Amino acid sequence: MKSKSPVIIDLKFDREQVAAALKGAFADREVIDLAHPANKTRDLSGIDYAVVWKPAADLFSRAKDLRAVFSGGAGVDHVMTLPGLPEVPVVRFVDQTLTTRMSEWVVLQCLLHLRQFRAYEAQNRKRIWRELDQPEAREVTVGIMGLGVLGADAASKLKMLGFDVVGWSRRKKAIDGIETFDAAGLDDFLARTDILVGLLPLTAETRGLFNAGLFAKLRRNGALGAPVFVNAGRGGSQVEADILAALDSGVLGGASLDVFEKEPLPLESRLWTHEKVFMTPHAAAASDVRALFAHVGRQIERLENGQALENVVDRQAGY
Amino acid sequence: MKSKSPVIIDLKFDREQVAAALKGAFADREVIDLAHPANKTRDLSGIDYAVVWKPAADLFSRAKDLRAVFSGGAGVDHVMTLPGLPEVPVVRFVDQTLTTRMSEWVVLQCLLHLRQFRAYEAQNRKRIWRELDQPEAREVTVGIMGLGVLGADAASKLKMLGFDVVGWSRRKKAIDGIETFDAAGLDDFLARTDILVGLLPLTAETRGLFNAGLFAKLRRNGALGAPVFVNAGRGGSQVEADILAALDSGVLGGASLDVFEKEPLPLESRLWTHEKVFMTPHAAAASDVRALFAHVGRQIERLENGQALENVVDRQAGY
Repeated sequence: MKSKSPVIIDLKFDREQVAAALKGAFADREVIDLAHPANKTRDLSGIDYAVVWKPAADLFSRAKDLRAVFSGGAGVDHVMTLPGLPEVPVVRFVDQTLTTRMSEWVVLQCLLHLRQFRAYEAQNRKRIWRELDQPEAREVTVGIMGLGVLGADAASKLKMLGFDVVGWSRRKKAIDGIETFDAAGLDDFLARTDILVGLLPLTAETRGLFNAGLFAKLRRNGALGAPVFVNAGRGGSQVEADILAALDSGVLGGASLDVFEKEPLPLESRLWTHEKVFMTPHAAAASDVRALFAHVGRQIERLENGQALENVVDRQAGY
Repeated sequence: MKSKSPVIIDLKFDREQVAAALKGAFADREVIDLAHPANKTRDLSGIDYAVVWKPAADLFSRAKDLRAVFSGGAGVDHVMTLPGLPEVPVVRFVDQTLTTRMSEWVVLQCLLHLRQFRAYEAQNRKRIWRELDQPEAREVTVGIMGLGVLGADAASKLKMLGFDVVGWSRRKKAIDGIETFDAAGLDDFLARTDILVGLLPLTAETRGLFNAGLFAKLRRNGALGAPVFVNAGRGGSQVEADILAALDSGVLGGASLDVFEKEPLPLESRLWTHEKVFMTPHAAAASDVRALFAHVGRQIERLENGQALENVVDRQAGY
């Protein structure tokens, strides 16, 4: 018997990426990759660790002795709602790679809307050479909902590019140079916001939050003409029927979506090719699998050395 | 006779924007807007100042007594090549607005290429849900040619977003945290570069610089697969036939162009709708006309108070 507990891998990621990243990872302990058919019926009792992304529904009934569960991403809703989740620390994956990539995506989307990308593409198709009236970034307020590591990083980068930036979180957070609002200030926050960026976890409180009622509270006389909705948090926070209705009626002038109520996005959705929508297939900030395993290895080492785990989820709050 | 010299306006900008900006501008002196038919045959002798963008070819033969010429933008090639340009200071327009807008455009283009925008759009049209393998910004080197106010600002913003950034200028310039090259280091600079950003003035030395020979020296094994060419300097610096050939052969993987050899871009150009090209109609960093007039007003005040003009063009260098 090995002295160190094996680690269970149950990651619904690209198989090749996981396989490549596993080479050389967890050098000092056995890896049990549940994607291998040989592990389908394997006894998982007595094992301390599992690294999971959308794990099998029966994982926690098979692996009854886990000491810690590691999420393959920043979000943990895919774990928190599973039956039999043991009362052990759930650790989210926060790393520089994830943060940098998310901010790349958020900045790109804000600039696409600011710089009237679709209007210029339409002109180009007709070979029309015409400069459009163009507000500057500082005339446009980006309101970020969710001020965790990702939201704070996006906020500072958007500000540095010239945007006016405000932030919202359930409990008020201070970010240097950025005006922030808390739960009680939601309506004031929305009334200031031209581009609403969702970077919220999925919880009972955020489910369906981005709906017609909320869109109607966004600033109506801003420099972009109509407000824009950007979501890279969780699809469960948005009501897609309301997004489409708001785009059609002009309540929203545009949207950028990386997450959807149902993923993959159903083939019949109008969002795939909507003229006012930019979409990506939950690809805004893919976890770098190598970085994930390195992070899990570091956390296991902390635990086994008697140190506290980092980035442990608050189970009361659900994120 | 008024005590203060009138100011001539000869700006080939959007008429409505100029007219709106002129309201309230130059409150203490007469404005002679050459766009007004009444001014077509007006005697312009004895007038000290002209604010110009692509001025009439006979401007300098009509206005023989100018003490200073103000360009409506950062570029001055449209003035320097005009017959009869008097031996007086030519002042470029450098303001925060112009710089901020240019960096918005450059950052947007670099992110469009990094984040495989066109590949995702193509997938979306086919309703394919598939995450593409995605390099991080730090794996991609943006090489900026031209390290004036615009180039330096773009460099620092790209670096802050995570890109690896290097810079080139004829005479070596130091920029905090960014490796820079000079004329002798051009080949080394190009061999490091995955996304080449042109922010150069048009001079005898830069005319036709961005050609097949230069594109072939860009890094071939970078994280983007093939190098990308971005130009927001002057169209005269690029050879569009070479750009198209390089895109077709794979020497270039993509391009973003705001400037063209001939503007407006001729209707028959393939660049309008090329699958690998993002284009805008010389709209990357439109001068804010109000800010332009405020700047000219400040400079005239300096001159009349015996202070030195700012941002005066080096006529030897041509920029």
